[in-house]
Amino acid sequence: MKQLPPKRIVLIGSGNVATHLAKGLRAAGHSIVQVYSRTLPNAQKLAKSVDASALDDLSTIDRYADFYLVAVKDDAIPTVAGLLPKDLAGIVAHTAGSVAMNALEREEGRHCGVIYPVQTFSVEKNVHWLDVPIAIEGINDHVEHQLTELAETVTEKVFRCDSGQRLALHVAAVFSCNFTNHLYAIAADILSKNALNLDLIRPLIQETADKAQQLNPRDAQTGPAARNDQKTLRVHQQFLRSQPDIQALYIALSNQILQYRQATQG
Amino acid sequence: MKQLPPKRIVLIGSGNVATHLAKGLRAAGHSIVQVYSRTLPNAQKLAKSVDASALDDLSTIDRYADFYLVAVKDDAIPTVAGLLPKDLAGIVAHTAGSVAMNALEREEGRHCGVIYPVQTFSVEKNVHWLDVPIAIEGINDHVEHQLTELAETVTEKVFRCDSGQRLALHVAAVFSCNFTNHLYAIAADILSKNALNLDLIRPLIQETADKAQQLNPRDAQTGPAARNDQKTLRVHQQFLRSQPDIQALYIALSNQILQYRQATQG
Repeated sequence: MKQLPPKRIVLIGSGNVATHLAKGLRAAGHSIVQVYSRTLPNAQKLAKSVDASALDDLSTIDRYADFYLVAVKDDAIPTVAGLLPKDLAGIVAHTAGSVAMNALEREEGRHCGVIYPVQTFSVEKNVHWLDVPIAIEGINDHVEHQLTELAETVTEKVFRCDSGQRLALHVAAVFSCNFTNHLYAIAADILSKNALNLDLIRPLIQETADKAQQLNPRDAQTGPAARNDQKTLRVHQQFLRSQPDIQALYIALSNQILQYRQATQG
Repeated sequence: MKQLPPKRIVLIGSGNVATHLAKGLRAAGHSIVQVYSRTLPNAQKLAKSVDASALDDLSTIDRYADFYLVAVKDDAIPTVAGLLPKDLAGIVAHTAGSVAMNALEREEGRHCGVIYPVQTFSVEKNVHWLDVPIAIEGINDHVEHQLTELAETVTEKVFRCDSGQRLALHVAAVFSCNFTNHLYAIAADILSKNALNLDLIRPLIQETADKAQQLNPRDAQTGPAARNDQKTLRVHQQFLRSQPDIQALYIALSNQILQYRQATQG
């Protein structure tokens, strides 16, 4: 990782992204000076773990930090942007995939930017920051440069990305992470209802993700729809008849795989 | 792995499952004596790699093998079962998730069974058999015992599973592997259309699968639907407006995640 003189950073937010970002930046040598949350105990919990002070009132924010990282729910970003003092000299950057940079631009001359880590964060699990791609956007070259330098102290995969591309990236992330995880949950339910353990498909989940590290997912597709095995598709739909939503999902996904197969095989 | 005196095995089929099974069994010390395919060059290709002979006519099958493993397309299993000689003394077992064992039961007294590996197999990628759960079913205790012993020479995860449970397991596998991979493919398309590289979400794909190794997928759910972030959900749906099928899928999956969230949070 690149080295940088330690920066003074304020974390606005105390959820999964804020928590892992604070820990990652601290491990890279920076100082987390304050953690803000609307709910003081939440701010205190994260603040304690990174040796920062906690606050629940943005008017008492440290005015001399280098970075103010806004890692709150997407729809709270404009509110926070409005509550921040007008005279902050440091860079104010949010961490959201689907919020345009200009949501932060409440004050003339504010140094706005975005630092969006393309990863899923859970409190229960540590993150290997080294591997996490971070998308950077800045209102000007100076801000972009500063945010890039900061991000490069935690990961090797820093790239520039405008607000439009970042939205595409976030939608792709929802499909490959949140929706994928929901499919795991459906599978877990099916197993559980049939007295089977989730461990039975964990190697399959792992292998499917491993394949996608090497292959193009289209080329790696297997299963009944990919081989147009109509009999199995019917048997599976019949199996799911008592769960109309899950059955409809099975049919929609199988049809999309079949359509792609037909498009490529002529 | 358990040791067993080498068995003589005939592989019926030459696709992904047959190929990896033949290689795994051979690596465990068994002899693959013959490989059958309707298409002789396919049989020859696999046969050559495991030092077996190739055939495209089941009437010339070796009558003295210990196991006849039927790894063909699901709907070809009954046909193969009908074409096999009536007087085989060895065990005839198919490898399919969604085909009942009795699809093989054409002859009175045939030793039928199932040996179903819960994994996805691609020609391009090696499989770590040690980790692959294998579901066993047999027409009687003798067959079950023999198939279990055979499976235990390639993996530590052998378990008994009747035809009904195996169907449930296969449906769960389709959701957690084939459909998951299709979501990866959708994500790859979105990235490609926006001049973004698939590498940007590969760590996310990996981490999502890694989490599922440790956590229950329901507990690991993140993203806009899981936090009921309606604004982001609307922005994403709007982003997908030119692809009605993908947009409909986005809505259906988000609604299912929201419903689960509401059910558990009161």
